[in-house]
Amino acid sequence: MRICVLGASGYAGAVLMRLLLDHPRITELLPVSSTAAGRPIDEGDWGLGVDAKGKLPSGRLLLDRDRALRAGPDAVFSALPHGVSARFCEPFFSNSVVFDLSADFRLRDEKAHRLAYGEAPPMKKTRQEAVYGLSELYENDIREANLIAVPGCYPTCALLPILPLARASIISSTITVNALSGVSGAGRSEKRDSMFVERSENALAYSPGFSHRHHPEMLQEIRLAGCGSNLFFTPHLVPMRRGIFSTISIPISGETGEIETSIGDALQGAYADKPFIRLTGKRIPSTRDVAGSNRCDIGWTVEGAENGVSMLFLFSVIDNLLKGAGGQAVQDFNIRFGFPRDCGLSLRGEV
Amino acid sequence: MRICVLGASGYAGAVLMRLLLDHPRITELLPVSSTAAGRPIDEGDWGLGVDAKGKLPSGRLLLDRDRALRAGPDAVFSALPHGVSARFCEPFFSNSVVFDLSADFRLRDEKAHRLAYGEAPPMKKTRQEAVYGLSELYENDIREANLIAVPGCYPTCALLPILPLARASIISSTITVNALSGVSGAGRSEKRDSMFVERSENALAYSPGFSHRHHPEMLQEIRLAGCGSNLFFTPHLVPMRRGIFSTISIPISGETGEIETSIGDALQGAYADKPFIRLTGKRIPSTRDVAGSNRCDIGWTVEGAENGVSMLFLFSVIDNLLKGAGGQAVQDFNIRFGFPRDCGLSLRGEV
Amino acid sequence: MRICVLGASGYAGAVLMRLLLDHPRITELLPVSSTAAGRPIDEGDWGLGVDAKGKLPSGRLLLDRDRALRAGPDAVFSALPHGVSARFCEPFFSNSVVFDLSADFRLRDEKAHRLAYGEAPPMKKTRQEAVYGLSELYENDIREANLIAVPGCYPTCALLPILPLARASIISSTITVNALSGVSGAGRSEKRDSMFVERSENALAYSPGFSHRHHPEMLQEIRLAGCGSNLFFTPHLVPMRRGIFSTISIPISGETGEIETSIGDALQGAYADKPFIRLTGKRIPSTRDVAGSNRCDIGWTVEGAENGVSMLFLFSVIDNLLKGAGGQAVQDFNIRFGFPRDCGLSLRGEV
Amino acid sequence: MRICVLGASGYAGAVLMRLLLDHPRITELLPVSSTAAGRPIDEGDWGLGVDAKGKLPSGRLLLDRDRALRAGPDAVFSALPHGVSARFCEPFFSNSVVFDLSADFRLRDEKAHRLAYGEAPPMKKTRQEAVYGLSELYENDIREANLIAVPGCYPTCALLPILPLARASIISSTITVNALSGVSGAGRSEKRDSMFVERSENALAYSPGFSHRHHPEMLQEIRLAGCGSNLFFTPHLVPMRRGIFSTISIPISGETGEIETSIGDALQGAYADKPFIRLTGKRIPSTRDVAGSNRCDIGWTVEGAENGVSMLFLFSVIDNLLKGAGGQAVQDFNIRFGFPRDCGLSLRGEV
Repeated sequence: MRICVLGASGYAGAVLMRLLLDHPRITELLPVSSTAAGRPIDEGDWGLGVDAKGKLPSGRLLLDRDRALRAGPDAVFSALPHGVSARFCEPFFSNSVVFDLSADFRLRDEKAHRLAYGEAPPMKKTRQEAVYGLSELYENDIREANLIAVPGCYPTCALLPILPLARASIISSTITVNALSGVSGAGRSEKRDSMFVERSENALAYSPGFSHRHHPEMLQEIRLAGCGSNLFFTPHLVPMRRGIFSTISIPISGETGEIETSIGDALQGAYADKPFIRLTGKRIPSTRDVAGSNRCDIGWTVEGAENGVSMLFLFSVIDNLLKGAGGQAVQDFNIRFGFPRDCGLSLRGEV
Repeated sequence: MRICVLGASGYAGAVLMRLLLDHPRITELLPVSSTAAGRPIDEGDWGLGVDAKGKLPSGRLLLDRDRALRAGPDAVFSALPHGVSARFCEPFFSNSVVFDLSADFRLRDEKAHRLAYGEAPPMKKTRQEAVYGLSELYENDIREANLIAVPGCYPTCALLPILPLARASIISSTITVNALSGVSGAGRSEKRDSMFVERSENALAYSPGFSHRHHPEMLQEIRLAGCGSNLFFTPHLVPMRRGIFSTISIPISGETGEIETSIGDALQGAYADKPFIRLTGKRIPSTRDVAGSNRCDIGWTVEGAENGVSMLFLFSVIDNLLKGAGGQAVQDFNIRFGFPRDCGLSLRGEV
Repeated sequence: MRICVLGASGYAGAVLMRLLLDHPRITELLPVSSTAAGRPIDEGDWGLGVDAKGKLPSGRLLLDRDRALRAGPDAVFSALPHGVSARFCEPFFSNSVVFDLSADFRLRDEKAHRLAYGEAPPMKKTRQEAVYGLSELYENDIREANLIAVPGCYPTCALLPILPLARASIISSTITVNALSGVSGAGRSEKRDSMFVERSENALAYSPGFSHRHHPEMLQEIRLAGCGSNLFFTPHLVPMRRGIFSTISIPISGETGEIETSIGDALQGAYADKPFIRLTGKRIPSTRDVAGSNRCDIGWTVEGAENGVSMLFLFSVIDNLLKGAGGQAVQDFNIRFGFPRDCGLSLRGEV
Repeated sequence: MRICVLGASGYAGAVLMRLLLDHPRITELLPVSSTAAGRPIDEGDWGLGVDAKGKLPSGRLLLDRDRALRAGPDAVFSALPHGVSARFCEPFFSNSVVFDLSADFRLRDEKAHRLAYGEAPPMKKTRQEAVYGLSELYENDIREANLIAVPGCYPTCALLPILPLARASIISSTITVNALSGVSGAGRSEKRDSMFVERSENALAYSPGFSHRHHPEMLQEIRLAGCGSNLFFTPHLVPMRRGIFSTISIPISGETGEIETSIGDALQGAYADKPFIRLTGKRIPSTRDVAGSNRCDIGWTVEGAENGVSMLFLFSVIDNLLKGAGGQAVQDFNIRFGFPRDCGLSLRGEV
């Protein structure tokens, strides 16, 4: 397999480079950066390591896109920003399977895209063919697709616990998603809000309710799962490098123990044979449990008030750069090309 | 004024020592530690600094309680754990005003106390006289009280935005409080869960819904404010030393702009002349804004869904060791003894 | 006293604003920012707090320099970058005492300045009058000066332990200074190297030996103290917001216990009556001990090898934004205007 | 290969478990914990992950030592504390190759051991056969050994740059090693000094000069390399989870450029074909470059003073839990059993 990575110098690109250089089924890797073509791949990424295992025909240099295009890669991973990504990927569409980590092909509804991203969605026709690459829940679609829109980090973490319940019609009232994210989620560009002194010893919420760009992505997916509930999403920034923690609360009626069982059944049904999902039951997972792994751990509990109203709490964690970006992209790649699902991906979190 | 501090060697005690040594109306300070009596006050707290301004008759040593008792302090601050605090304070009740930072006198309902703390509440009779020391909202009661139950850190941060709305009957549906806390909230005792390697690069929720000990404290106060809503509270631990961030969501009906105005009016009415409350409107505050200060900053916004259901979001931040513990205790002390409310307390957050 | 702050929107400026707003001898404060004139002082610095105590004639807005100039301040604090600061301060020199926190007036030797900063030092004549504002060691000079060059953070932390020994002719061999700094030392401008994800979980040395700009500043001062030793200085960046830790090693001959005593005598002689210096003897201080305070804590020990060569270790800590910048500037201001040395400055570190 | 891990529940044990579960040449893993035998291996280590690849005959439970002993492992890794480790390993010596990560077999000199660890070294006879497992420099010895004393984290990081220069007789004057360590180096036992609130935003030195237990280990090795210099070692704790940064300074005479070249030659000679050593020349490495990898990166520079005295600076970084503990143990295991040196070990650092 000959693979191309677009945008190799950001955080998601750096993770993709590591995963793909060590992926046993990939024989050739074409790292592209429009801003740093001709520079060494590890300049500014000294952790990347010296061993390219003979996979870099470029002799350890970043390429420009056209050179990669001429090489005719089997697959392309794009870690470019939305708006840029679709345009940059376009010439690859005819001959390569494209895994786009940006938001350019995630939303089916043009109006929703325009509202969220401030511009018309690119490539009206091509986007009809894009498949939403939430690996565990769209496996069959991914297997057939030539354009995979890899989901956002927040939606991945929130949708994995919610969608099986939505599909099983367990959820009918308002969904409140509160998520905590590490700072790498903001990317590698120099912004005051991403500086060490601004972020350490600091926590806050931002873009609450309907105002974050990942909100319509979540809404699209719960609607497709047959759920008509409102969904309010509030992300928070906390002082850590990596990781997302989602606390999802949904009012629910019925006997507490029974609901917990039906929740468990629905999640078991969806994920019993999925290696990257771990159901932790009433034990609440933490972001460390999955740091460095491609896993999503999910816990849940129901708290019953005296007046008959209960609240379902779902808790989920991912590593935003792996299951929330590069890891899920590689998982989709494995599905698409028929490799073992965990090929080149780790199930273990770091110490 | 002669003042005694019980439990001077924990984090809340260390903050109290700093505030009281620099408080201009205090002339004598009696620091008590049952475990370290006879040891220097700054052993194990090297930041405390060398300048006691002649306030320590003990010659910089920690005292045992009986010596402090004989000295007959005007006021006693207890930073002891619940269960221990009431018993240890008891002999002071007859002659001193007691500010108890533990949970021993916070809950009026015996059953609620027993459920939360696993034992009967102490001193049935004395506890009837205790006043809940949420400074801005119980000023008149505090002025008359001889036993002030200083609120918990989470309840302080959540109740300051909620109670004025509850009193103004603006809230009628379920209240969901999600709070993020720094690690100092867990105290200074050696626990695996408080270790650097366990907490850094890690985030999780714990004790969701009704299961945290601060839940009945919040519930008591919203009921006293005339609000019958359910309240679900889920605390989270994030990797920082100090600070609490609360995200409070409450379904609400009406026109978005109108609700925002009425929320603003109710909060303005309650806090217009309160120096430690800053209303930030639609700007969401962050924990850094109040780190090192005794302030609580409060922001709010309403997000309206197409189907007529809106969600009110309240955001509030405090420094858990100041407004959430020692700072509020000193604020109550100022109120009780008629000193300026901000005497010895800072309005400014650190850089 | 009417005071002007130039460059109020950086980290050092933010610390100065806090110190000066709360300084009891200052009645009027003129905050200047050339880039943000006309904007509120707390926009982007929400922790600054609401209470200006009537000291801001500008009505909480940042001013341009000319307005401050017309107001005729008694003193000017400049927290501008080197190169810019001298030029910007120039018109104030005739009527105001200037405390320059930049490097523009620190080095007496033109060649050293040119080597370190890549350009000729500004204002040949004026710079002759500048006094090096290392508070404890140049008190008499500061009292008479109208231009005080406030020392750099690294030199302050290293020179306070070294200079008394140099003056007492105790040191004659090579001095090796290794220093660890928090990230705020790099200032508030957006650089990739100052980003949270780049700095957290990361440590490194930079500019070793003679190559850091603070090296000639240290060398100048040990030479003035009569010491001809080589000095090698290697700064390190570690993942914390504030604080500098210096480990200074100097080969020394003689009997271990005797040397330790003579070191102690020299330091005691220099600092016995200085409130902001704490000598900790063989106990090694840590940066937390002085965080939030204007103190410098100093410890020392001598390790003797079997072959008669001993090594003197000096350990010193400061808060880089206080004793290493704004705090020392205010200390110099107190000395210059005859106020108590600790006026408006804290001796206590944070919890 | 059937492998046993003693002390599987500490940080080094947790790293070993991950490495060995994923090591392609190991078919059976026997995890032993005397305190938690019978408990699940991932209780308290949720990141370990679910996939044991059929390697755990114990059905995911921790074993007691005797059960592991009866199974007759080919090799034993001990991550137990010094003092305990030797005794616990003893019955395995006859039939298994032992990799001891504790200090029990590192020091050849009994007196040095007694001074450093406060007790006589264990097993006088067996310890004669122990080989010091600094992988790159004792490869031949390790290949033949049945007892490998895996080096300490600080000695590994310091000796890798120093020893080739000592062997080449380039070093003749005093060696000063300053090292910065992350908090995981202190292990997983609950100590106040390992708590988040004590360590975050804090830096300090400890055990300077000759007083740290790793000092005699370094001294032994430079002596064996033929170097008679004094060596002073001062470790520092900085607020990060993992990583060691060493700054080593050695006075040296000669022309700067020439020395740099000879240093480079000596290091190249020693490490040219070693996959886990990366020589970075004048670029100073940082701990992030090697976090998550088994690499040691080494940089160097020479600063020349005007008076002819130059200072050689060596900079080296490792991940203390990998190259400084479990990773180097597995590297030694690979050498001993003739597997590829990087089998099951990563060359890449994390993003």
